[in-house]
Amino acid sequence: METSKAASPAPTRVVILGGGIGGTAVARRLANAPGFAITLIDRQNHFVFQPLLYQVATAALGPADIAVPIRHLLKRARNVRVVQAEITGIRAAERVVDTDIGPQSYDVLIVATGVEASYFGRRDWEAIAPSLKTLADAALIRERILGAFERAEAVPDPLEHARQLTFVVVGGGPTGVELAGALAELTRDTLAHDFRHIDPREARLLLVEAGPRLLPMFHPSLSRSAMQDLRSRGVEVRLRTRVTAMTPEQVEFGDERIPAANIIWAAGVEASALGRSLPAERDPSGRVMVAPDLSLPDHPEVFVIGDLAHCRPAREAVALPGNGGVALQQGNHLARLLRDQARGRPRRAFTYFDRGAMATIGRHHAVAEIRRLRFAGTFAWWLWLLVHLVFLAGFRNRLAVLLHWAWAYVTFERGARLIIRPARQPPPASSGR
Amino acid sequence: METSKAASPAPTRVVILGGGIGGTAVARRLANAPGFAITLIDRQNHFVFQPLLYQVATAALGPADIAVPIRHLLKRARNVRVVQAEITGIRAAERVVDTDIGPQSYDVLIVATGVEASYFGRRDWEAIAPSLKTLADAALIRERILGAFERAEAVPDPLEHARQLTFVVVGGGPTGVELAGALAELTRDTLAHDFRHIDPREARLLLVEAGPRLLPMFHPSLSRSAMQDLRSRGVEVRLRTRVTAMTPEQVEFGDERIPAANIIWAAGVEASALGRSLPAERDPSGRVMVAPDLSLPDHPEVFVIGDLAHCRPAREAVALPGNGGVALQQGNHLARLLRDQARGRPRRAFTYFDRGAMATIGRHHAVAEIRRLRFAGTFAWWLWLLVHLVFLAGFRNRLAVLLHWAWAYVTFERGARLIIRPARQPPPASSGR
Repeated sequence: METSKAASPAPTRVVILGGGIGGTAVARRLANAPGFAITLIDRQNHFVFQPLLYQVATAALGPADIAVPIRHLLKRARNVRVVQAEITGIRAAERVVDTDIGPQSYDVLIVATGVEASYFGRRDWEAIAPSLKTLADAALIRERILGAFERAEAVPDPLEHARQLTFVVVGGGPTGVELAGALAELTRDTLAHDFRHIDPREARLLLVEAGPRLLPMFHPSLSRSAMQDLRSRGVEVRLRTRVTAMTPEQVEFGDERIPAANIIWAAGVEASALGRSLPAERDPSGRVMVAPDLSLPDHPEVFVIGDLAHCRPAREAVALPGNGGVALQQGNHLARLLRDQARGRPRRAFTYFDRGAMATIGRHHAVAEIRRLRFAGTFAWWLWLLVHLVFLAGFRNRLAVLLHWAWAYVTFERGARLIIRPARQPPPASSGR
Repeated sequence: METSKAASPAPTRVVILGGGIGGTAVARRLANAPGFAITLIDRQNHFVFQPLLYQVATAALGPADIAVPIRHLLKRARNVRVVQAEITGIRAAERVVDTDIGPQSYDVLIVATGVEASYFGRRDWEAIAPSLKTLADAALIRERILGAFERAEAVPDPLEHARQLTFVVVGGGPTGVELAGALAELTRDTLAHDFRHIDPREARLLLVEAGPRLLPMFHPSLSRSAMQDLRSRGVEVRLRTRVTAMTPEQVEFGDERIPAANIIWAAGVEASALGRSLPAERDPSGRVMVAPDLSLPDHPEVFVIGDLAHCRPAREAVALPGNGGVALQQGNHLARLLRDQARGRPRRAFTYFDRGAMATIGRHHAVAEIRRLRFAGTFAWWLWLLVHLVFLAGFRNRLAVLLHWAWAYVTFERGARLIIRPARQPPPASSGR
């Protein structure tokens, strides 16, 4: 608390909602800054490195490898208090956030709670086709995938074999592409020889995209490369194809019905109810329109950053995409802005520096686009590995992930193939998992 | 399947119930042996190295570090089929095992399903004081422990602080001692500086044992050493103390009431319902009395091994304890016996070679007893680390655990401090976790 001696008598109460990339960036950049008393609220106790979530879902990494307790990240920030709580509402007029453990007043509010999966109004599909946003989601998807092989091995009916071993990934963005590629490795390599009655290599993998190409945020040549590579790994890629119906038994694309026990949703995101409750305009997907300095036009003391913000800096043609790089730069910008403001300097507008994008398809194949440079193949794959190791939080996690990846590279194994269900509880019905 | 060419036309159908140390030992020793068609059934898909379960419960290791898919362990055993299913009954007269995915006939049945926690008839205590038998149990205990600190940090009431930060471990055997020691490290070192409102070092830790000393299976000098060491680490050890009542709010020992939000049960085990359904005599804790060759006296084709067996070889004064060493030797014995029998040789009685026992208390302190040698302190601790690394299944797991331990040794950190609860679901009421 030595820093508070230099602070003004009443420090600015900054409340940050959400401990993702954006929220933790603000807190880290304001750590031990005089004049700020910061409260970071998240429903989870941990920060998750989202770009590797699909590796937890496909049993390559364990949950602890890609997550760090938020309060551990901010251990040395003596002016930051981390609270695990559910946010139940924001009263912007009174400058109060309501949580399940009581209200919290603020002078500055930063909303960085991200987005959730959008089922385009078909909320009933959520129980059938889980999406991938949290560690709990990743664990659920992992257990469904591994459970499908167990059930197929256990039943004699070949039609049911085929249904259990049909995996449909909906959505051809980076998450969908990476999931489909990882499923190909899981079925073709890792599990190939582990069963007696079924051959996991016969698993049918479909990747379904409503638009005309995969990875629409990349250059078309990289979209083509990714699609060719997925096809060569045995993934059926369907473009311009929309899911029109689904049940636990099958999925329908217009007239076509495919019996499939495993559907994973990676098709779109929308703002959460909390984001929709903010007093501001929103774009069609519910993202909050922010001013050039990332504040709300009618509430200069409220800022929105990360995936939840619809932000189009002056020099950009379209709104920025929802990704970790944008969230990180916005978090850093906000910390600078608040420090400037405390010194009486004017607020600056947020500007974005595009560091590029990348997605991995599988062993020795990734695509990367860094400004005008484009890579597809082995070099991009090694680059992907390096960049993700560097950005992963926590030196210990980096070592552990490096070990797991090196092991997988040599042996084709995946170490986290666990189906964890509570003991002393009846197993779920086979169609329900 | 090359081995089956040399086999007799109708191979012996061996069904193994339980994929723990005993069950997998039989399967591994009969791998690819001519004349045996083996089915191993377990409700879980993974083998768990139980001696390190307490490290998962106290956030030092992740679940995947101490577990391996059973079918991966037995990947090269072409005559072994692994089935994930719930066993619902045994019809010994018909030589059939019933499961939730259908019946399974056998020529030889090996029951190695272990034991479960005994609440001495107080099943209602189970929801209040979880026990530690499976990965799901370990994850639950980890989330309760870490959640208690989060709740204490969030509430202003000092009485509630104290209650949330009171941890009571019931049972002074190896699991209870190891849990209490690990809780001391977690609160005194790992979490010491992570909070703003509470000081985790003020957490109250109690270890309660009904008998006159801790670790009753060790020499009394080691029991004393363990107790002194726990006390020096801030654990209150109560001997000759029985829990008489508990609620989610408090625990009672006779007249004494201690407000405590965290109670962990490590006080005793009993046979599961499946074990009790076998046609054989049982000891008071429900363990099945087996013949010298580990079979049931009235059913020479049914064997019981591991924790579920009450086994007293001719040269032993008392029944063998329930531990991994006994289970492993019994599994190996059974594989030899079945091979002998296939060659027309007589069955041999099981003999036990005692390799000793050990328990760890904390950094630089363990106790070990190997025949007449007794160690307490730093040497025993390093020995404990070495032995547990060697016996851990899977080379990859060994590397990962070695990494996590080395990291923790240097930094006092614990890497798996995750509270994972499903998203989009209301948080549980504070008293219920």
